[in-house]
Amino acid sequence: MTPIRHLLTLSDLEVEELKAIFHEAIELKKAYKNGVREKLLDGKVLGMIFEKMSLRTRVSFEAGINHLGGSAMLLEDRHVGIGTREAIKDVARVLSSMVDCIVFRAKSHKVVQEFASWSSVPVINALTDKAHPCQALADMLTIYEEFGSFDDVKIAWVGDSNNVSASLVEAAAMFGVHIALSSPVGYHFTKEEIQELTRLRQPGFELSLHENPADAVRGARVVYTDVWVSMGEEAEEKERLEKFAPFQVNAALMKHARKDAIFMHCLPARRGLEVTDEVIDSPQSRIVEEAENRMHAQKGLLLWLLRN
Amino acid sequence: MTPIRHLLTLSDLEVEELKAIFHEAIELKKAYKNGVREKLLDGKVLGMIFEKMSLRTRVSFEAGINHLGGSAMLLEDRHVGIGTREAIKDVARVLSSMVDCIVFRAKSHKVVQEFASWSSVPVINALTDKAHPCQALADMLTIYEEFGSFDDVKIAWVGDSNNVSASLVEAAAMFGVHIALSSPVGYHFTKEEIQELTRLRQPGFELSLHENPADAVRGARVVYTDVWVSMGEEAEEKERLEKFAPFQVNAALMKHARKDAIFMHCLPARRGLEVTDEVIDSPQSRIVEEAENRMHAQKGLLLWLLRN
Amino acid sequence: MTPIRHLLTLSDLEVEELKAIFHEAIELKKAYKNGVREKLLDGKVLGMIFEKMSLRTRVSFEAGINHLGGSAMLLEDRHVGIGTREAIKDVARVLSSMVDCIVFRAKSHKVVQEFASWSSVPVINALTDKAHPCQALADMLTIYEEFGSFDDVKIAWVGDSNNVSASLVEAAAMFGVHIALSSPVGYHFTKEEIQELTRLRQPGFELSLHENPADAVRGARVVYTDVWVSMGEEAEEKERLEKFAPFQVNAALMKHARKDAIFMHCLPARRGLEVTDEVIDSPQSRIVEEAENRMHAQKGLLLWLLRN
Repeated sequence: MTPIRHLLTLSDLEVEELKAIFHEAIELKKAYKNGVREKLLDGKVLGMIFEKMSLRTRVSFEAGINHLGGSAMLLEDRHVGIGTREAIKDVARVLSSMVDCIVFRAKSHKVVQEFASWSSVPVINALTDKAHPCQALADMLTIYEEFGSFDDVKIAWVGDSNNVSASLVEAAAMFGVHIALSSPVGYHFTKEEIQELTRLRQPGFELSLHENPADAVRGARVVYTDVWVSMGEEAEEKERLEKFAPFQVNAALMKHARKDAIFMHCLPARRGLEVTDEVIDSPQSRIVEEAENRMHAQKGLLLWLLRN
Repeated sequence: MTPIRHLLTLSDLEVEELKAIFHEAIELKKAYKNGVREKLLDGKVLGMIFEKMSLRTRVSFEAGINHLGGSAMLLEDRHVGIGTREAIKDVARVLSSMVDCIVFRAKSHKVVQEFASWSSVPVINALTDKAHPCQALADMLTIYEEFGSFDDVKIAWVGDSNNVSASLVEAAAMFGVHIALSSPVGYHFTKEEIQELTRLRQPGFELSLHENPADAVRGARVVYTDVWVSMGEEAEEKERLEKFAPFQVNAALMKHARKDAIFMHCLPARRGLEVTDEVIDSPQSRIVEEAENRMHAQKGLLLWLLRN
Repeated sequence: MTPIRHLLTLSDLEVEELKAIFHEAIELKKAYKNGVREKLLDGKVLGMIFEKMSLRTRVSFEAGINHLGGSAMLLEDRHVGIGTREAIKDVARVLSSMVDCIVFRAKSHKVVQEFASWSSVPVINALTDKAHPCQALADMLTIYEEFGSFDDVKIAWVGDSNNVSASLVEAAAMFGVHIALSSPVGYHFTKEEIQELTRLRQPGFELSLHENPADAVRGARVVYTDVWVSMGEEAEEKERLEKFAPFQVNAALMKHARKDAIFMHCLPARRGLEVTDEVIDSPQSRIVEEAENRMHAQKGLLLWLLRN
């Protein structure tokens, strides 16, 4: 029996597998834009566990599986009670006996790992404290569409070192793309974390760390930021707002990027903090395309995981 | 590119368009009653944002799109966080990039208007503080089924001047039907409001205002009421209950109507307040048919909006 | 017109009808395991009202109707407001005008009975304070699969006399199986209750009551337990935990059963209370199969109720 494949972090995949999913997503998007919604996963059922609130993730998965002829059910914390009402392994074994695939947005990456180890169907990480692989897949799709290839693309990440940037680093490594990270002192990934995230790095991959955001953005074609205070970090809010203030993506910072640079943000954004209206609403902004690409990327992923 | 069509109030439609939707609904209902559920909107995805609780609206839209081969997803306030977690325009642009149509039940009509202005797919008002066009469409369908035409029909509205009666006035104007409104002093629509609601009035339309409910009901074939205290008006409850007490629809009031008159209510009802059990449970009551017609009317609307 | 059929308790069915559903479930499971998901209920819509939290019940019904080509919508208490926001009969008549079948998990059996009396479509009891017929159907399926027939099967129920064991007694009676119940003094069914539950008893049915769990388990091929404190009984928690302590299903107790005995639990389990890890995680445990069989059993039920 082939072992069940999960997607908890991007490097659960081989580089070639990641590229296969990526190209699947491109084809599916093309078909969709031509009005084609082929029922490639007819009758398949997706279980979606959300411990944290979500708009994009939930809608993109649900609409995506619907387009492919399947259906999705939303399981919120009060429906499931993982680890409180019931042992993780009991929930995992029971739920996976009834659905074809499980999408899991969890507070703790460890919980998703334990859950996946008991699941008899593929589990997709839809955001944990550690990784956000579906977002990174959508981000790379957005960048690829913009520039036609990853050659000569430099991505500048400005802000916190979090789940989103961790997966973006992983994606950049696997696709062989240059990425520059700028964060306040004390908010960079550790060497060990970078080592792990770049385990599958390919030719063309380059990583640089900066304390000055302008240095990261210089020559970049992608400027990417995210909120400074994520869910669960509210206690540190005041301290974070101070430390991250110089990392705001505004028109002045964007001047350091290439003329054809695009702005990205995984949303929701706190306008006026990590990004100004002038940037997020500018012609350079790709936030809507990026969000829409969540759907296309995940359709590629679902198809790859479930068609076999 | 044709501009996106929305339905925020009935007069967003031309009279001919409203009639086309109406006849679509009649045909769909006929087919449905014959056991036919043709997948006319196969694979289409409906996003439904509900800021306020709903039973009829949610079930009628969800069952309706299901009958037509599509699917619906419920987005409650905690999933979306419009205007609190995220800017309206960001939610609107992102959500409309993933679904084919958006149903929006909101506290504020202005929010739905702003949302629609950013949406790339049709937005349907499923109740705001200002209008309830889907209800009015179902109501007209119920009346038409009962009497076979709108000729010689007089509708008496007894009670508050609210979103439901506003849309009913609009519908009566566009279908050319006589409507009599009776409300306590101080609770009538203003002249300006009536002017706006009757902008598209057709021959046969007539509007009269009354302070005595018996005057409105005299000769009516439809007696319609709604709750006296809507969601958000709880602070005024005591005052309203006193002022509206003489506007209760009871057997005595119904005697002023024509013998073949029907009783209507958009539900939920507070039995014993705006209507007595003897009326709402009488053979004259059409509350169940009226609720069921929400589904048929909205199927006509969905088909009209999405088939093009 | 044929009267609407509901499933509020198993004995709403004739014995032959129960067996027909049972065999439908077996066929559907076989097809499903062979990868066949025939759209036998294409386009049918299931309304699911849940007044109490649920994982298994909700997922099994929703996945089940999806497999058959239909769709389900979850109606939680805040969406419906039965008996608080709106009269039961109004909700029942309106909802049943829009969906094809209603699954109802309620605190009160009486509410489901009243609801069903007003519904124009079949109503399925998905757990009340009195009965859990879908669970019993799945349990009998699990037992039948294990032993190939019900001949020579003795079921031992250890613990509380509740909705789950009530329906299990009913099932044992109707299938003609031996069941032994052991509960603390004061927690047994009354004679009247047993009379009612065994009204349709068939040859082979036998019922024995025990105060010592070892007496019930002796020679049993099925050992079944459930939580000691159900939702709504939290006030009695301390007293119950004391009284039920000798009724824990542990390795020592399992020794009294036949060597080929299986352990069953409807889940969620409170590990370390009514059952120990050594039992629930042993090779004898069938808790996952039993939960999965909820889905297959209910698909048989849905098909039987809706195909006509």
